[in-house]
Amino acid sequence: MRRPSEEGWDRRVQWPLVVVSLLFVAAYAWPILDPTLPLALRRTLATVVTLTWVVLTGEFVVRLLLARDRWRFLRDHPLDLAAALLPVFRPLRLLRLLSLLTLLDRVGRGSLRGRVGLYVGASVTLIVFTGSLAVLDAERGSSGPIQTYGDALWWSVETITTVGYGDMYPVTVTGRVVAGLLMLAGIGVLGTVTAGIASWLVERVEDLGEQEDLEQGTAPATATDVQALREEVRRLREELAARPSP
Amino acid sequence: MRRPSEEGWDRRVQWPLVVVSLLFVAAYAWPILDPTLPLALRRTLATVVTLTWVVLTGEFVVRLLLARDRWRFLRDHPLDLAAALLPVFRPLRLLRLLSLLTLLDRVGRGSLRGRVGLYVGASVTLIVFTGSLAVLDAERGSSGPIQTYGDALWWSVETITTVGYGDMYPVTVTGRVVAGLLMLAGIGVLGTVTAGIASWLVERVEDLGEQEDLEQGTAPATATDVQALREEVRRLREELAARPSP
Amino acid sequence: MRRPSEEGWDRRVQWPLVVVSLLFVAAYAWPILDPTLPLALRRTLATVVTLTWVVLTGEFVVRLLLARDRWRFLRDHPLDLAAALLPVFRPLRLLRLLSLLTLLDRVGRGSLRGRVGLYVGASVTLIVFTGSLAVLDAERGSSGPIQTYGDALWWSVETITTVGYGDMYPVTVTGRVVAGLLMLAGIGVLGTVTAGIASWLVERVEDLGEQEDLEQGTAPATATDVQALREEVRRLREELAARPSP
Amino acid sequence: MRRPSEEGWDRRVQWPLVVVSLLFVAAYAWPILDPTLPLALRRTLATVVTLTWVVLTGEFVVRLLLARDRWRFLRDHPLDLAAALLPVFRPLRLLRLLSLLTLLDRVGRGSLRGRVGLYVGASVTLIVFTGSLAVLDAERGSSGPIQTYGDALWWSVETITTVGYGDMYPVTVTGRVVAGLLMLAGIGVLGTVTAGIASWLVERVEDLGEQEDLEQGTAPATATDVQALREEVRRLREELAARPSP
Repeated sequence: MRRPSEEGWDRRVQWPLVVVSLLFVAAYAWPILDPTLPLALRRTLATVVTLTWVVLTGEFVVRLLLARDRWRFLRDHPLDLAAALLPVFRPLRLLRLLSLLTLLDRVGRGSLRGRVGLYVGASVTLIVFTGSLAVLDAERGSSGPIQTYGDALWWSVETITTVGYGDMYPVTVTGRVVAGLLMLAGIGVLGTVTAGIASWLVERVEDLGEQEDLEQGTAPATATDVQALREEVRRLREELAARPSP
Repeated sequence: MRRPSEEGWDRRVQWPLVVVSLLFVAAYAWPILDPTLPLALRRTLATVVTLTWVVLTGEFVVRLLLARDRWRFLRDHPLDLAAALLPVFRPLRLLRLLSLLTLLDRVGRGSLRGRVGLYVGASVTLIVFTGSLAVLDAERGSSGPIQTYGDALWWSVETITTVGYGDMYPVTVTGRVVAGLLMLAGIGVLGTVTAGIASWLVERVEDLGEQEDLEQGTAPATATDVQALREEVRRLREELAARPSP
Repeated sequence: MRRPSEEGWDRRVQWPLVVVSLLFVAAYAWPILDPTLPLALRRTLATVVTLTWVVLTGEFVVRLLLARDRWRFLRDHPLDLAAALLPVFRPLRLLRLLSLLTLLDRVGRGSLRGRVGLYVGASVTLIVFTGSLAVLDAERGSSGPIQTYGDALWWSVETITTVGYGDMYPVTVTGRVVAGLLMLAGIGVLGTVTAGIASWLVERVEDLGEQEDLEQGTAPATATDVQALREEVRRLREELAARPSP
Repeated sequence: MRRPSEEGWDRRVQWPLVVVSLLFVAAYAWPILDPTLPLALRRTLATVVTLTWVVLTGEFVVRLLLARDRWRFLRDHPLDLAAALLPVFRPLRLLRLLSLLTLLDRVGRGSLRGRVGLYVGASVTLIVFTGSLAVLDAERGSSGPIQTYGDALWWSVETITTVGYGDMYPVTVTGRVVAGLLMLAGIGVLGTVTAGIASWLVERVEDLGEQEDLEQGTAPATATDVQALREEVRRLREELAARPSP
């Protein structure tokens, strides 16, 4: 159960949060995508990045303070926690965006598998674009092959699918940390896709078996069946009770 | 439920559609496989590609108009929709061939796992040959290593299996988009193969457990068991009713 | 059901077959592993390869003729069929060895998962060593990087695990066909390992759930429970019948 | 069941074992990480490695002798056995550390999936750091690209995730054996992650199905249902017995 104050807070800050997050992304991504920006604009954008980060982390702290069980809250929101603490690693700051997925979760409806699929699809898209930005920021100017956003995007795709041709690869430590996170994400995606198909297949095969059972009378007796039987015995007792004792 | 007009249309156009699709493939693939074709023939083939595309897209529009619930129809036929809309990206036009798989689905019979296996096998074969053509069309003349159909085919195989040696890789944007689609297909294939084996294994293990349950009398009571019991109680009531009241 | 003549044949030829298969491997592998063999020995070994292949294919034909339903037999023994027909592709002849796995299957006992694991382990080992020989035979003398058996073995391992660094890769058509088969095997192995773990995990989680059900009385009623109830009702009827009618 | 002497031994040596293992790692890793150590210190560390290995193997032998069924003990502790026998391959000695996971297993509590996840996480971390040390020890001084610990760590990560860019790869036999073990570990990790997600998804989908069954009365009759019915019949018999015979 969530306390009323928590829910009220969530509802009120939901959309402002999305706006601040997008502002953060724009201010973070622009100087990476266009390295020829004048110094003044570059500085302004850096300030915006710092300010938005302060706002986002502040909001997380407020939610933490409003939470009934704070340890549980931290354990249930590892992405938000990482996003609040990680900014020391500058390019990883973008992981902040992942908390947008939590918004999606607050809104999402539909079948379990459909929601898992939506979640995975949104995560992958976000992670690929985020990872490309972060790796480009780390690698530009190094001796590695990743020097444009196009290359970085292509590298993200071949990394998250674990193909790894080797035409693009990071050479800096930060770039390799980002790569490791992308690979982990890739293993998770592979696992979830497989699990989704397996769960669908197992369910369908079981449904077919149950239908066969129903047709052959070998389905397990349902609670309704036993209920009917109980009714039968009760009526028997009533009939017996209705007869006059000899 | 499908409306009669829909089914009639489907039956009538099935085979003409296959012929037109094959014509499309031939006219698309020939100039890619043999880059030394004379200009006149090259132009004729380009016209055939355009005409067959018009016919195939037209057929899709007719089926869309005949459909009862048009949004549902679009959602259920994403491949046909993509094939109708994507031709702006020329090399992706070949995805049109994927709708042949829908024909397969209309015809296919057999166990669920067998049908899924057939579907995956046919898809992979089609995707590998299609992807090779598309990537060759995009890469020929670029500075990348993929310059012959043999190389393109080899590249498709190592991409869809996510091996990715790196002896072959695309360098153009279109080539990389095709590569991304192949990788997605590869993840899907891996997932489906795994899911198929897992579903088989889970089913076998459960069957063995059920057999053991049957032998030890710990199988769940079936509806037939309870039915027999109910019969017993009914006969008891009849016997009671047959006795003269004292 | 197998006919007596079939079973008798199987029992009698089992061990001679293993000997002939090993002879085939030795005669096939030796000239590949040592390219400096004198011509005379090389020719003798080629003759041995041909003779053993004739014997192995002949045995397959005899089993085919003894089989009751020949189409079914062909469908159930795809590896034997491929081994009998494929020898046109010389390096693929080694796949003949895979039929040894069928022997394993005739002998194997134990839990389903244990047997699947044994089968996968033996297949992978055989495929890796076989694939290395076949690819070395195809690649030696080409411009590719695979020139020693050590390199070929290392290449097989990184291919079947779908890692594919790209330090080794085939450049000939035959080598690439062998690579494709190894990749397919790799996908199968990944799938089976995953499926085995998943099936174990699903079973354990279900067992825990069933134990909880038993403790809380929410386990499904077993056939034994209903049997006991039926006994109760029968005794009631007997007691009633034993009373003198009024 | 374990014999009292076994359990007593386990409890007493648990923490000393961890200390000795860490000593082993330190003495093994230091000269690999810093190749400029003076010869005297290098020799001392080699002696520590040998001594700690003797202690660890001795402890394994004691546990083997205390075990009731020794073959079973060997089969249930393959990692300990390998760690005791493998030291011939010097870099593989580090696998000794894997027995720390057995300690974890003796202590671990929680849900099955949680424990499997913890086990996999700890194994992967240990394997990546161990594999990096072993491969660096084997590759340093060779013509291969892996020459610093940073490179070795990066190589381990891209190998265990089966990405394999090809910027780093082993060229020595020992390095390739370590790589093979890492790839096997990678396949196991992929499989376990997928299996965990699949098992969660299957369980959730089944739970939803059971809830629906409960609401519609189509859940299987529980043992409690049948028990209640039996009670009903027993009361009927008692009532009948209480009536005076006519």
